[in-house]
Amino acid sequence: MISPNVRHQYVGGFRRRLPGTSASQRNIRLQIEYDGTNYAGWQLQSSRKKKTIQQVLEKTLRKILQEKIHLIVSGRTDSGVHALAQVANFKTSSKIPADRLRYALNGNLPADIVVSAAHDAALGFHSQFSAKSKAYRYCILNRPYPSALLRQGAYFYPHHLDTALMHKEARCLLGRHDFASFCASGSSVKTTIRTIKRISIRQAKAHQAGLPPGLLIIEIEGDGFLYNMVRNIAGTLIEIGRGRFGPGYLKKLLQAKNRKLAGPTAPARGLYLVEVNY
Amino acid sequence: MISPNVRHQYVGGFRRRLPGTSASQRNIRLQIEYDGTNYAGWQLQSSRKKKTIQQVLEKTLRKILQEKIHLIVSGRTDSGVHALAQVANFKTSSKIPADRLRYALNGNLPADIVVSAAHDAALGFHSQFSAKSKAYRYCILNRPYPSALLRQGAYFYPHHLDTALMHKEARCLLGRHDFASFCASGSSVKTTIRTIKRISIRQAKAHQAGLPPGLLIIEIEGDGFLYNMVRNIAGTLIEIGRGRFGPGYLKKLLQAKNRKLAGPTAPARGLYLVEVNY
Repeated sequence: MISPNVRHQYVGGFRRRLPGTSASQRNIRLQIEYDGTNYAGWQLQSSRKKKTIQQVLEKTLRKILQEKIHLIVSGRTDSGVHALAQVANFKTSSKIPADRLRYALNGNLPADIVVSAAHDAALGFHSQFSAKSKAYRYCILNRPYPSALLRQGAYFYPHHLDTALMHKEARCLLGRHDFASFCASGSSVKTTIRTIKRISIRQAKAHQAGLPPGLLIIEIEGDGFLYNMVRNIAGTLIEIGRGRFGPGYLKKLLQAKNRKLAGPTAPARGLYLVEVNY
Repeated sequence: MISPNVRHQYVGGFRRRLPGTSASQRNIRLQIEYDGTNYAGWQLQSSRKKKTIQQVLEKTLRKILQEKIHLIVSGRTDSGVHALAQVANFKTSSKIPADRLRYALNGNLPADIVVSAAHDAALGFHSQFSAKSKAYRYCILNRPYPSALLRQGAYFYPHHLDTALMHKEARCLLGRHDFASFCASGSSVKTTIRTIKRISIRQAKAHQAGLPPGLLIIEIEGDGFLYNMVRNIAGTLIEIGRGRFGPGYLKKLLQAKNRKLAGPTAPARGLYLVEVNY
């Protein structure tokens, strides 16, 4: 019987194992929830003072699997950004069942990083390149006083925001556009064209969920996002909601392709990577 | 014109000011949200190691009003219990507008205690005695793995719970009953008879509210609650949900008036005082 983990190709009529794979090699896909408050983001960047999510996960995997592990992530998150279901994968020759690995990881990880799922994936699965779309959520606590129960997971904005106007204006972002106006300056990407599939701004049903009232949620799904794009869109929508940018501004901004005309980058603490679709 | 803050009574046909009140005295009603994690409950009890909510609030009020303040609360909450809208009132001769007092309090209180409202109340208003009903919520994180984003505000219970059965069984608690089976032993109350107006067990609509999935919410409203009553009901409902107590057990337990037959007291971290109705 042929192991399903071995990748083959037909060469000259013969079935050959792909180079770089072995009968024992597996590709494990993890789904991870994390509170980004105490981390310098997913990947270690300039400052080495704070630990990163990747660093803590790789160290814990190495301890459990007794093997050096390199995680491939769907996309890096910045310092302070949270994730409900980040996806990362890694190759291993370990025979540990994926579900037992999840238990072992959660038993060894700090409480602010939780592995919610671990599965064997096809060897060709790549967390970043296989992703079809991603959804982010930006949470704003919009009421005159802060929340004792929601201190880290939302951006506290005490002034009135016109939610209906924000929702209406945001709709011009739907579809395929050049999002250069929302791309952090200094970012080097081949193209600033992305497709937004879904965007909405709504009040969370606080009572239904056991949450403090006043939580405003921006949800956005797209085939990909530029650096700081969601936080720049959130920051611009806040300016629209408070009346600094009038109706039609967002559409003009999109056409202008000029980051300087957009609103400020909204703080990291309100941002959640919600899902990655493959 | 007569100040509405002065309490009078008619003595021998003459209008007299009530003893202990003055033309300048006011009764201020506060609504308070708090994260109980780092506090030894509302009121200082035996251990003096941890600070209490009342202690911190009274100290801050004294600092702002330059006057010794005594807070009357709707009901004490235990160590680790949270509140979305606790109510407390106090008498003062300060002339500070109630809304300015709210700003001053929030500027001086630690981040885990927030005053969400401050109003002038009738001099006769008493947070505890004027209360008609109270609503509590008990949050259970019911999924196989813990949450990185919801670490303190829910009781993590990883085994399967039959929510529909819990909801159905809980309905026998509705109405006027002797709740002796759910009263902490050693409690000295005149009567253990209370009226439950509302009880429900449901899955939080996690996606709607931006919460991790798997949150189970018990909501209960009554004219009053015995010491540990909500946590004892929650603990018993969990035993029903996991199948240790069969259908009909809760009804028999209520009739038995015996605390020893109930489930364990569910942990404080899952409990929220949601509202006090007057």
